[in-house]
Amino acid sequence: MLTDQQLLRIPGPTPIPPSVQRAMSQPMIGHRAPETKDLLQRIKPKLKPIFGTAQDVVVMTGSGTAGLETAVVNAVKPDDEVLVIVTGSFGERFVNICEAYQINTHRYDSEWGKTVTPESVKEYLNKYPKVTAVFATFCETSTGVLNPIAELAEVVHNNSEALFIVDGVSCVGGVETKMDEWGIDLLVTGSQKAMMLPGGLTFVAASERAWNVIEENEHPRFYFDFKKYRNQLANNSTPFTPAGSLLFGLEQVLQLVEEEGLEQVFTRHTQMMQMTRAAFKALDIPLLTNDQAASPTVTAIKPFDFQVKDLRNVLYKEFGMVVAGGQQHMKDEIFRIGHMGYCSPADVLQTISVIELGLHKIGKQVELGKGTQAAQEIYLGY
Amino acid sequence: MLTDQQLLRIPGPTPIPPSVQRAMSQPMIGHRAPETKDLLQRIKPKLKPIFGTAQDVVVMTGSGTAGLETAVVNAVKPDDEVLVIVTGSFGERFVNICEAYQINTHRYDSEWGKTVTPESVKEYLNKYPKVTAVFATFCETSTGVLNPIAELAEVVHNNSEALFIVDGVSCVGGVETKMDEWGIDLLVTGSQKAMMLPGGLTFVAASERAWNVIEENEHPRFYFDFKKYRNQLANNSTPFTPAGSLLFGLEQVLQLVEEEGLEQVFTRHTQMMQMTRAAFKALDIPLLTNDQAASPTVTAIKPFDFQVKDLRNVLYKEFGMVVAGGQQHMKDEIFRIGHMGYCSPADVLQTISVIELGLHKIGKQVELGKGTQAAQEIYLGY
Repeated sequence: MLTDQQLLRIPGPTPIPPSVQRAMSQPMIGHRAPETKDLLQRIKPKLKPIFGTAQDVVVMTGSGTAGLETAVVNAVKPDDEVLVIVTGSFGERFVNICEAYQINTHRYDSEWGKTVTPESVKEYLNKYPKVTAVFATFCETSTGVLNPIAELAEVVHNNSEALFIVDGVSCVGGVETKMDEWGIDLLVTGSQKAMMLPGGLTFVAASERAWNVIEENEHPRFYFDFKKYRNQLANNSTPFTPAGSLLFGLEQVLQLVEEEGLEQVFTRHTQMMQMTRAAFKALDIPLLTNDQAASPTVTAIKPFDFQVKDLRNVLYKEFGMVVAGGQQHMKDEIFRIGHMGYCSPADVLQTISVIELGLHKIGKQVELGKGTQAAQEIYLGY
Repeated sequence: MLTDQQLLRIPGPTPIPPSVQRAMSQPMIGHRAPETKDLLQRIKPKLKPIFGTAQDVVVMTGSGTAGLETAVVNAVKPDDEVLVIVTGSFGERFVNICEAYQINTHRYDSEWGKTVTPESVKEYLNKYPKVTAVFATFCETSTGVLNPIAELAEVVHNNSEALFIVDGVSCVGGVETKMDEWGIDLLVTGSQKAMMLPGGLTFVAASERAWNVIEENEHPRFYFDFKKYRNQLANNSTPFTPAGSLLFGLEQVLQLVEEEGLEQVFTRHTQMMQMTRAAFKALDIPLLTNDQAASPTVTAIKPFDFQVKDLRNVLYKEFGMVVAGGQQHMKDEIFRIGHMGYCSPADVLQTISVIELGLHKIGKQVELGKGTQAAQEIYLGY
């Protein structure tokens, strides 16, 4: 086996493009130097179309969870009541953050692998008319579900005064996102998913409506004080020393997105999703989600006649390929393939053809090449 | 002028060693993969001698301020009274964080450029007998003062039950630190100073005494919940997706420290401080601090017969050399030279000889080579 190869096909962290690696290796510069101001000035306008917003997108140093907590402590006042739409373990994260701050938190749980309907969210809003914020997950990484954020935003705004706050960590950058048009009030993403970077940065933007709440909010906060970041970013700066090498990499990521074209980035992700789904359908191996609920960035597969562990082991040992298992109660029930960020249709074909071999090796009857062929046909249909 | 050269001589961010750059360019791996567990397991024991502790040193994703805030929200209960020793703008940072959380905060301000005495701290402790935590800055970056942390710890523990919490951001890794022996209860540092990395990581360790408080403390927190980090680190893991490339770099930094020998790292920093100070003394340009208060990592110079701005401009324009100005009321009054992390006696000689030329260029009468010679003599005396 070729030892120096790892085929990282989990839903983040994702592989890093070589030119981004090189950009991250630039010599360090002062965080208050004109070069850093210039860098932030160049980055700023290029993040906006990815979020689909006219607002500045703030770049913070931290894990995605730091961004989610920033949304909570800035937009929710200590005595507020909130509703969290939980479609998997990352919906749960919002619940955990809110509960850590003793916020009165209602939850609407959907079955894992299913999305939620605007009608049912409306029922919850009627049941809890005092909620000041509704939290949702755009792509639920634990199941590969893409929630209908535009529709959810509409039902929230038509039936309440609540802010609509979205965790976009595992899809923003790979999936069309129209923060302003849809009415998302706070949107968060991380660097290590569709943004093609290592972990360490989190991105947050807020609507005018959210800013009205943030400015009045006296919830104690310092590092997560969003106003500090906005005010500094207005001057192309950051309140605290940023993760310099990741900012260098970010500029190159935005360059790559510009070269490919943002629309084509989105199309590529949809194509990779369809290729992956077609392959498993052709192999008669069940997908966790239906086509309508599927995310362009991650696909969950729920086999009934082989052990997920066995497949993951053979993929790793024979090919250096890493796919993710499930989380919580789905730990050994599903496996998840990430197809986001620095990932191409060619990579998807490799993933599928290697998985076919892996299935064969663990003794599952598969017609070799059948899944690959189905994926190829999807590719040709584009 | 050679355009692709920047001589970064500010007190952080600092230059990155080439082997650390290369380490950071390794392909990404899964944050829950065995490779990440192995990496954290290898890193863990090597951080302890740098802190001088038998406790695990937690690695968090965030700026140094995130680490300082972690210390505050874990070690201070909402109704507590605290004392902050303020010797410059980073002492101020602790005040700002505590005040953001409405903590009853007393401050003991010393003149910028001076350190504090244990006797005066004792007076404050007598004046405020209810304080449960005393905050201090090890190296005050804004002035180049190294506070006498061992003595301060002693006076705090001999005169109160308070925890002693230390910001070591701009010196730990370059200056001998004996957290356990001295009695530091919480110690914080950042990645972009003596630790030879880009910004993005912060390191925090806590004493047994601090853990007793942290475990009982109900101060709301989620991302900064220190227990989560300790419990995950016990299993060689992290609660949230870490900054992967910086962890790769960290391992190589620890390797470099091991190769040089930690004692020699400390000696090198002291040597660089003495070389720098001897040079400005030889040139008759006043230093901000006296020898007893001087930090091995950063030196502040307070000229009386030339403009700091003029010197900084010519250094940058002619040589690509960046030295820092002052902060707050000392903005244009001092300039600060960082000599920490990836910085050698040879780099100090370059810095001094270039500054001599810069002084000449802005019309100050200097005997060229005189400062350099003084630094060389210090070097030869080692």
